[in-house]
Amino acid sequence: MSEILVVGSVAYDSVVTPAGSREEALGGSATFFAVSASFFTPVSVVAVVGEDFRGEHLEMLAGRGVDISGLKRQEGKTFRWSGVYGTEDANARRTLDTQLNVFADFAPELSPAQRRARYLFLANIDPDLQFDVLHQIEDRPRLVALDTMNFWIQGKNSSLRRVVTETDILFIDEGELRDLASEVNLVKGARQVMAMGPKAVVVKQGDHGVLLFHGESTFRAPAFPLENVTDPTGAGDSFAGGFLGYLAATGDLTPGGFRRAAVLGSVMGSFAVESFSLDRMGALTLADVEARFRSLSDLSSFSPLGDGENLPWRDSPRKPYTT
Amino acid sequence: MSEILVVGSVAYDSVVTPAGSREEALGGSATFFAVSASFFTPVSVVAVVGEDFRGEHLEMLAGRGVDISGLKRQEGKTFRWSGVYGTEDANARRTLDTQLNVFADFAPELSPAQRRARYLFLANIDPDLQFDVLHQIEDRPRLVALDTMNFWIQGKNSSLRRVVTETDILFIDEGELRDLASEVNLVKGARQVMAMGPKAVVVKQGDHGVLLFHGESTFRAPAFPLENVTDPTGAGDSFAGGFLGYLAATGDLTPGGFRRAAVLGSVMGSFAVESFSLDRMGALTLADVEARFRSLSDLSSFSPLGDGENLPWRDSPRKPYTT
Repeated sequence: MSEILVVGSVAYDSVVTPAGSREEALGGSATFFAVSASFFTPVSVVAVVGEDFRGEHLEMLAGRGVDISGLKRQEGKTFRWSGVYGTEDANARRTLDTQLNVFADFAPELSPAQRRARYLFLANIDPDLQFDVLHQIEDRPRLVALDTMNFWIQGKNSSLRRVVTETDILFIDEGELRDLASEVNLVKGARQVMAMGPKAVVVKQGDHGVLLFHGESTFRAPAFPLENVTDPTGAGDSFAGGFLGYLAATGDLTPGGFRRAAVLGSVMGSFAVESFSLDRMGALTLADVEARFRSLSDLSSFSPLGDGENLPWRDSPRKPYTT
Repeated sequence: MSEILVVGSVAYDSVVTPAGSREEALGGSATFFAVSASFFTPVSVVAVVGEDFRGEHLEMLAGRGVDISGLKRQEGKTFRWSGVYGTEDANARRTLDTQLNVFADFAPELSPAQRRARYLFLANIDPDLQFDVLHQIEDRPRLVALDTMNFWIQGKNSSLRRVVTETDILFIDEGELRDLASEVNLVKGARQVMAMGPKAVVVKQGDHGVLLFHGESTFRAPAFPLENVTDPTGAGDSFAGGFLGYLAATGDLTPGGFRRAAVLGSVMGSFAVESFSLDRMGALTLADVEARFRSLSDLSSFSPLGDGENLPWRDSPRKPYTT
């Protein structure tokens, strides 16, 4: 049995970015997540593809040790998405075309083994499907994590709220959090969402990093400052793959474990955007990932105040100012 | 002699923010900078005000121990600015009105004591004035720091480049850096600017924190996640005040010193935006500042990989993926 079960999309993406373009590249939320998490723990994918899905892509997933027994091949074409990214804000992408194809009738059905999953990632799909999958699991999984998007926040709000109630970790963009919570302030918004059920909210802020709210603990995980961003597609799912991969591999659900998980998520997300599709992430070595983890540690470290140590205060007396 | 000399504006601001509004509140780049830095080191202000400048505001600055002998009182009215802030992006402010008044003819002239300043902050004013002030200093100061804005990047580009060449630390918003360097990527843009002269570039990313490029070192200083943002005016200058105040007070210009300076800048910027004008910052105690510095340490800390420690790699062999 795999440690993590992911339910989501497998797609062919055609993207135009400031760095170039790529036609019909392997993508999809389940794909990026599974390849990212597969470095750390066994992953099982539940998704649907069409008759046109290429054998080399099945082999790639299997070659990464991903369990693809739940990847259903169905009459019709694989889900296709195409879009254009702007130069400054990777989140400001414009969709040119979406062809759901076989994904339109996606009705995930878990195998007996999959029903015993301990870690579940409900990637960004219809919240009714997310709810249905969650309730196919026999026992309560150790962790249920969920990703969503504005389309569901606006279009299926009550369905989304129903499944969020049973979620442990919510991954969400800052703009989406503001929408979901009807609250501009991210701290207040995260607290509101946590009051609905989740133990943790991971607020994604693109190339500025993430804010992790976990119980009473707040953590800011830095993004790695990249010199070359090729294609932002899949960054969020790769982040989630590193995050949950670390938690499942270590079983460490303490605040310290969650913090490291967020940093590893940031590491995997940074690799994802350095190439089109999975070119960079699929070719990573252990040394690459650990080196970037160490870089991120260095990038965000500074000398804290020791016990009893003071900041260099000026000696002269100062009057407090009141208006 | 004061440790830091700041040349900039002293103003009355009228602002509307999502949290409320305030008319004719004390503001200006030199004001926020001086009050922030005054916690750590003596500061001397060079600026101009009109006949309407209120005695209570002179007393406030003097009461904070700020040397206001260079605050020239001139016939006419004090500089006035009014603007409106949007709900999500504090940098997306809209100026309603600017009345330069006495600031229109601002021609700073340093006193003999000021000409011996060791730390110089050239706040956001005309780059020709910044250049002129810099060349009034007798010896090369230990540190010259400069802030600017799009107005000068677009309108006085060659003047700005001339003074940036002689600057040690440039404070700049990420959008402004992209403009100045004609480069979308912040890492590349910062390197280009450093090739012009500055040893350090501090890229301000609003409520997401700052990226500090300092020699070969890159550091991401977290912003403090605030529950209540009242008025973003003055955040950048308060950041610079904490940053340079720390460096001048300690004399520590090592990479470690710069990192702590950036965190203290973030601390002071976070206080500045919690109230209109200087209400919050002026009333701070030592305990407030140190407590927030410790909070920021906690907020960004995670357990790094120890020497020889590995991430939890999956045992099974995996095939690298190539397209």
